[in-house]
Amino acid sequence: MSEYRTERDLIGEKQVPKDAYYGIQTMRARENFPITGYPPHPELIRAFGYVKKAAAMANRDVGVLQINIADAIIEAAEEVIEGKLNQHFIVDAIQGGAGTSFNMNANEVIANRAIELLGGQKGEYMRVSPNTHVNMAQSTNDAFPTAIHISALRLADGLTKELEKLIDVLKLKSQEFDDVLKMGRTHLQDAVPIRLGQEFGAYQRVLSRDLGRIRRSVDHLYEVNMGATAVGTGLNAKPEYIKKVSKYLADITSYPFKTAEDLVDATQNTDAYTEVSSALKIAAINLSKIANDLRLMSSGPRTGLNEINLPSRQPGSSIMPGKVNPVMCEVINQISFQVIGNDHTISLASEAGQLELNVMEPVLVFNLLQSLSILQNGIRVFREYAVEGITANIDHCRELVERSVGIVTAINPHVGYEVASRVAKEAIQSDRPVREICLERGILTEEELNEILDPKEMTNPGIAGSHFIQG
Amino acid sequence: MSEYRTERDLIGEKQVPKDAYYGIQTMRARENFPITGYPPHPELIRAFGYVKKAAAMANRDVGVLQINIADAIIEAAEEVIEGKLNQHFIVDAIQGGAGTSFNMNANEVIANRAIELLGGQKGEYMRVSPNTHVNMAQSTNDAFPTAIHISALRLADGLTKELEKLIDVLKLKSQEFDDVLKMGRTHLQDAVPIRLGQEFGAYQRVLSRDLGRIRRSVDHLYEVNMGATAVGTGLNAKPEYIKKVSKYLADITSYPFKTAEDLVDATQNTDAYTEVSSALKIAAINLSKIANDLRLMSSGPRTGLNEINLPSRQPGSSIMPGKVNPVMCEVINQISFQVIGNDHTISLASEAGQLELNVMEPVLVFNLLQSLSILQNGIRVFREYAVEGITANIDHCRELVERSVGIVTAINPHVGYEVASRVAKEAIQSDRPVREICLERGILTEEELNEILDPKEMTNPGIAGSHFIQG
Amino acid sequence: MSEYRTERDLIGEKQVPKDAYYGIQTMRARENFPITGYPPHPELIRAFGYVKKAAAMANRDVGVLQINIADAIIEAAEEVIEGKLNQHFIVDAIQGGAGTSFNMNANEVIANRAIELLGGQKGEYMRVSPNTHVNMAQSTNDAFPTAIHISALRLADGLTKELEKLIDVLKLKSQEFDDVLKMGRTHLQDAVPIRLGQEFGAYQRVLSRDLGRIRRSVDHLYEVNMGATAVGTGLNAKPEYIKKVSKYLADITSYPFKTAEDLVDATQNTDAYTEVSSALKIAAINLSKIANDLRLMSSGPRTGLNEINLPSRQPGSSIMPGKVNPVMCEVINQISFQVIGNDHTISLASEAGQLELNVMEPVLVFNLLQSLSILQNGIRVFREYAVEGITANIDHCRELVERSVGIVTAINPHVGYEVASRVAKEAIQSDRPVREICLERGILTEEELNEILDPKEMTNPGIAGSHFIQG
Amino acid sequence: MSEYRTERDLIGEKQVPKDAYYGIQTMRARENFPITGYPPHPELIRAFGYVKKAAAMANRDVGVLQINIADAIIEAAEEVIEGKLNQHFIVDAIQGGAGTSFNMNANEVIANRAIELLGGQKGEYMRVSPNTHVNMAQSTNDAFPTAIHISALRLADGLTKELEKLIDVLKLKSQEFDDVLKMGRTHLQDAVPIRLGQEFGAYQRVLSRDLGRIRRSVDHLYEVNMGATAVGTGLNAKPEYIKKVSKYLADITSYPFKTAEDLVDATQNTDAYTEVSSALKIAAINLSKIANDLRLMSSGPRTGLNEINLPSRQPGSSIMPGKVNPVMCEVINQISFQVIGNDHTISLASEAGQLELNVMEPVLVFNLLQSLSILQNGIRVFREYAVEGITANIDHCRELVERSVGIVTAINPHVGYEVASRVAKEAIQSDRPVREICLERGILTEEELNEILDPKEMTNPGIAGSHFIQG
Repeated sequence: MSEYRTERDLIGEKQVPKDAYYGIQTMRARENFPITGYPPHPELIRAFGYVKKAAAMANRDVGVLQINIADAIIEAAEEVIEGKLNQHFIVDAIQGGAGTSFNMNANEVIANRAIELLGGQKGEYMRVSPNTHVNMAQSTNDAFPTAIHISALRLADGLTKELEKLIDVLKLKSQEFDDVLKMGRTHLQDAVPIRLGQEFGAYQRVLSRDLGRIRRSVDHLYEVNMGATAVGTGLNAKPEYIKKVSKYLADITSYPFKTAEDLVDATQNTDAYTEVSSALKIAAINLSKIANDLRLMSSGPRTGLNEINLPSRQPGSSIMPGKVNPVMCEVINQISFQVIGNDHTISLASEAGQLELNVMEPVLVFNLLQSLSILQNGIRVFREYAVEGITANIDHCRELVERSVGIVTAINPHVGYEVASRVAKEAIQSDRPVREICLERGILTEEELNEILDPKEMTNPGIAGSHFIQG
Repeated sequence: MSEYRTERDLIGEKQVPKDAYYGIQTMRARENFPITGYPPHPELIRAFGYVKKAAAMANRDVGVLQINIADAIIEAAEEVIEGKLNQHFIVDAIQGGAGTSFNMNANEVIANRAIELLGGQKGEYMRVSPNTHVNMAQSTNDAFPTAIHISALRLADGLTKELEKLIDVLKLKSQEFDDVLKMGRTHLQDAVPIRLGQEFGAYQRVLSRDLGRIRRSVDHLYEVNMGATAVGTGLNAKPEYIKKVSKYLADITSYPFKTAEDLVDATQNTDAYTEVSSALKIAAINLSKIANDLRLMSSGPRTGLNEINLPSRQPGSSIMPGKVNPVMCEVINQISFQVIGNDHTISLASEAGQLELNVMEPVLVFNLLQSLSILQNGIRVFREYAVEGITANIDHCRELVERSVGIVTAINPHVGYEVASRVAKEAIQSDRPVREICLERGILTEEELNEILDPKEMTNPGIAGSHFIQG
Repeated sequence: MSEYRTERDLIGEKQVPKDAYYGIQTMRARENFPITGYPPHPELIRAFGYVKKAAAMANRDVGVLQINIADAIIEAAEEVIEGKLNQHFIVDAIQGGAGTSFNMNANEVIANRAIELLGGQKGEYMRVSPNTHVNMAQSTNDAFPTAIHISALRLADGLTKELEKLIDVLKLKSQEFDDVLKMGRTHLQDAVPIRLGQEFGAYQRVLSRDLGRIRRSVDHLYEVNMGATAVGTGLNAKPEYIKKVSKYLADITSYPFKTAEDLVDATQNTDAYTEVSSALKIAAINLSKIANDLRLMSSGPRTGLNEINLPSRQPGSSIMPGKVNPVMCEVINQISFQVIGNDHTISLASEAGQLELNVMEPVLVFNLLQSLSILQNGIRVFREYAVEGITANIDHCRELVERSVGIVTAINPHVGYEVASRVAKEAIQSDRPVREICLERGILTEEELNEILDPKEMTNPGIAGSHFIQG
Repeated sequence: MSEYRTERDLIGEKQVPKDAYYGIQTMRARENFPITGYPPHPELIRAFGYVKKAAAMANRDVGVLQINIADAIIEAAEEVIEGKLNQHFIVDAIQGGAGTSFNMNANEVIANRAIELLGGQKGEYMRVSPNTHVNMAQSTNDAFPTAIHISALRLADGLTKELEKLIDVLKLKSQEFDDVLKMGRTHLQDAVPIRLGQEFGAYQRVLSRDLGRIRRSVDHLYEVNMGATAVGTGLNAKPEYIKKVSKYLADITSYPFKTAEDLVDATQNTDAYTEVSSALKIAAINLSKIANDLRLMSSGPRTGLNEINLPSRQPGSSIMPGKVNPVMCEVINQISFQVIGNDHTISLASEAGQLELNVMEPVLVFNLLQSLSILQNGIRVFREYAVEGITANIDHCRELVERSVGIVTAINPHVGYEVASRVAKEAIQSDRPVREICLERGILTEEELNEILDPKEMTNPGIAGSHFIQG
């Protein structure tokens, strides 16, 4: 007995593995697009399950889909949602055709599973047709974007949860380090004192803005174009169906989906994705900057700044014994570079839309879902394996402040920029403390200096010793 | 008599042209950075005027700046705001030093002008010192970002006004073309009918979202870090001063400026700029897509799609007589590419921040202000010289629909996808109308076809002739 | 009996699955970097096999590695080369640590396999140590870059072979279509006639330059930094070893590898990779342009340019029967966008090198190898499923030329640009042929026009009918 | 008397300032494209002078251009080459129309100047017509790319000269610092010793490769498409003219220009530019890495690495007296970001070519020439004001080596990675020297340690003390 069944379409016929839930169109896509070797993202598969289930429910309700067929499609779609049929989603992540192959893969898997549920054999499409029944009142051009929305929202949920946790930890760290006086640096050059807690506070705040940006960026994803069909005009989709399908989608996913106000617009434009990707890119930039700072501050230990310590996570070198590297920071940098590069690909794909459709959506969604996933994964391990365990070298931090010249800035308001510059120059050239020179030159008294050069005072707004000026 | 005056600083002395309002530090910057040949953006110069004026007012109020000096600085700053001293801002748009040279150029110009107003000669810095007085309680690290915020906001205002006008025109066009039936295309292949007005409606909607995005993106610019001084700790800036300077800045610019909640954060992070740039990038992507569509639809006239006509703006060729090209669309594409590339530079610069400061701000602001300016300029001429004058070739559009095969989609719900596919295939191969084949093969009656293939009906949601199915 | 064995390192101890060839350091990496879910590229794994084999041979020869241990390592490395141990390479494609985890994964797998070959049990590192023996005289910082070079070269070979085949097919097509007269278009507007074969010839030529660029770009990959060890100074690597290891590498891979002239340079700089990626990016740009042209020329069929036909590869729509889309072109566009975005990531990673090392190499190599792979895959199917089967609609192409106005350019040299412009304008406005107007207005005689407007003549250099001018 | 003259074209008529050498088409372009406010790059203007001169010479020789008109055009073109008419080139750097406005600006300026030279009044185009005479046998589509080639080559010459000088200085520095022992760092963590001269040697070598890359990248620019006319078919360009025009171009510019082998290819493809831009991008990446290294090594002085000193170029802060920043490095970073962003814009523009032409060339050339210029400018001042004056803090460098743990790597070959790891761990935890621990634990003798831990020895290939092992 043959291990294949024969299927036919517009182009001709093809042998399909007998056990496969997918069919001829998936086979063609498989042959046409052996590009990355990566299957669709599991969340994209799941999202197609939601789309097909909601569509079947709506089509059943408006009376165009027979109840028993609808029920079988719904049950099959639920199995897709549960991930039970993932191995039958075999089309490549990058593919031509605007996602038609993703959609047909889903249609075929669900149709064949539904056929089985109705007591038939895979391939008996008279019972349940991938196009006529599973794809009823749909086009790839509405089903696929809707699936992208669902999958992106679910991944964004995971990401924002991880980002929140990181922000919380940074806040705790900023409190923990509130008393750690250290040298502030601008241009990598000694500037004026700051507290380590203030630095972690700044990290917390910028990531809080990123959290807000990412959350706002997904807002447009709640508008789906189900019912748009081919070009947004809604051809072959009854108005009652359109209302119901969004409603069902919202019910079964728990996201507040609604039909986009203008389906033509929603079908041809991809700015909802570039908006999310831009928010991710900005977060990536900020995360990379933070990772760089942590790598700088933990540099050394003996020949670097050595202000903080990162947890040891793995031997850092195959040749240098005892070396431990800031690997959890480095992976954040690399994830950030990937996300920024992905944003570039997404921008290119988005710009390439033409007239009624953007056919470059597959590569766009591949990059978008990857960015969402790797950011979530990276932020989790970064928090858990790096940030939570950071400790400060308090004494070393204080020593660096004390031997710095930058504190000369505090005497500015008392003696003017020009005099202060001369003190600074002498301090640098003679390698002596600012305080000593001020005293020796009779520029300020000991009492004044004590007040003005109080390093703690210097890390909060105000002119230290300003009563001397006014007095 | 010499045409130069001698000035001195920490590094040494230098000859400054006698008539120049700028001084030695500007001279050094000029020598160090002969990079692009472009001066600072006029709006950036103006913004420094606002900053210095507000700071002088606040310093005067809190009693650290003498009233007569303050008054002179304020008057000089007003001249900067009015653009009267633009030719004295000579430092290059791209420069090392985190904007210190911009700031010192402003400090020197205002100091020297203030000295004159007080009856002195340029260079008599005992009267008004660029650092001690004009820059009082400021650092480049708060004055420069604040100036960026002001200039970006002003340019964003201009941009959003132009964008609004374009949106309005697109809306009018979508109404004007509401009855123009034409072929919808996906993958550049014949799909199903659509109305030209629907397409312009989609353009209007996506740009409306861009308008919203740009507006939201500038929100963070209302938070300024005046008072942060060197690293955000507020060293040398009195709390009263900090309160007042933001207040004055709001008063004199009419923007609702307020002091950033966390000055350390606001001094080291540049996400406020990447956020604006991202919004511009998304708008650029969408504008480029629209420009591409218009170029496609106006292609030909004889050997292209020829659905619409763009106004003739200039002879299109130095060799081909009579040729007129879609130059106003092409310039939009190019502006978009520039804005997208600029966003890339901005991202690189933003990621390069280290510890307490991002020293790459000059190149960042150069690109940001350029993007804002060229988008505004481009959108204006695009609307005025292209979009407003678009006309439709109504008859040609209708003819294309009538001879298309794509209308076969409408018979799907009646006969199923497989039968419809066979009709389509025959229509293509025999180069005959879909209607004719349906009749000949007895697939649908004339009455049914009239209703189902009503092209106007096909451009709105619903299943044409659905009563036949249910009947 | 336990299913785990216990291993120890600098950080502590860990349970390793008993059957696993990898060890504790791989386990740590697995835990630390659950980022993309993608394993290392198979060619990168294979390349590590080559590196470890060559190093063992060289270490054996210079007398620092016992012969029996060397032999076991060599045998194990050969199994890696053959792909037999791929499932034991489990570290994530994106990882912190400059590739140390890749290298240690390889060291551990080979050590454990070698231990077995010597009759021991996995984990008995006294017999063969991953660090001391397998990694002998190596650092990640020379072993990993060398592995990148090998894998990139092998993939580049595959890519250039596919590119050559595409170029050959384009050449055949340019010959096949040499007589197909069609309208040339600039700005998507009718320009002057051209032959379809000339267009395919241009595609062939630009891709031939790309082939040359890619080939030249890999030249620097033949220089490897084996022997550089940690920072390029060659600490712990004997000069004889350094000579031998490159020689062996060349022998076993058949690539002309040699030791880089300056090992410090070769260890810290990654320009060899950015150079390859840039060449790929340029090829991607050109491929995308060609794909766009083919999509334009095959647009329609009824409402587009319809000059050429692409083979039907799959049903183009889940809703529109009979629709066939240019999916093989679209996938080329998407691959191109991915490659361009990858180049961006690679540039970011490359710029982030610091001092003696670029620790961002993992994300760099992930993107580089992906670009090489997807371009190779994409070009193959593009040639096979699209370009080879292109046919021309010869009659339609000729009709378009005949009704165009652009041919008026040919009368320029006879009547001047201004007169020709008036003819063109009249032709457009009255929708009449250029020829007719010239005759009617007495501008040129029929005889002259026959010669001047010979469309074939117009597609080769020269002034048609120039004897009229001189005569 | 009016200050304007009236000119006419296909579109209508327009008032042109009486003294202007440009004419109506330039006026239209000015009105249509008020985008950046930047005029064409001076080298692009000059290049048009070369193009028009060579074309007039060739047209004269083949007998289609009257000798007196040719002579006047040639003389006018020479004035353009000399930069005498720069202020009459007023079209915006970013413009629609594929450069037609640049070309027409050149045609009009040269025509009007030629008219004057022939004794006429500006605007008397019967004497010399911008299109018929100055543009004779040319199209924007060959004249403009040829001008891009010339201007890019001239700027590349200047750039490579500056790059050579920088390489020479780096070589001198690598010799000067050959004895400066310092700590090598990977991951910003202490690694093993290196010599400062080795680091500068690595900088010299990578930039030498960049020099080679840039030089090779301009090779394709020697192929020009003069004679291609509108679409590359050479319509209206006599074969003799085509031969002569390239020859003349080579003569008057001293570049070995030749006619591109395939003019259709050369007219539609822009890979010659992306190739140059890619080479610039790679150089920018490498320069940025070097600038980052110098900023790191000069960080401090008191709270950073403080290994080297950069020359003081300007006061570094408006608030912090005595602060001097690495401004010349920072400007290199920013130039690099600009060049990388420009490469992005260039890639976008290049990918947007369609069929016979790439109409996005104006934005492409704007970015390409800017990148060439700012790199040249930046490299010059970077060398002169930063690199030449770098000094080393020799004692501090040595101290850092001596207190580092990384030297433990050298004992690896003697005691194995595992024992060495334990020594390292103890050294770090107890803050004691590696040497002390080895002695105390009896791991190595003093004699052995002296030889093995000789830091100078550690910076060259070899196993220090390897005779102990073999002995």
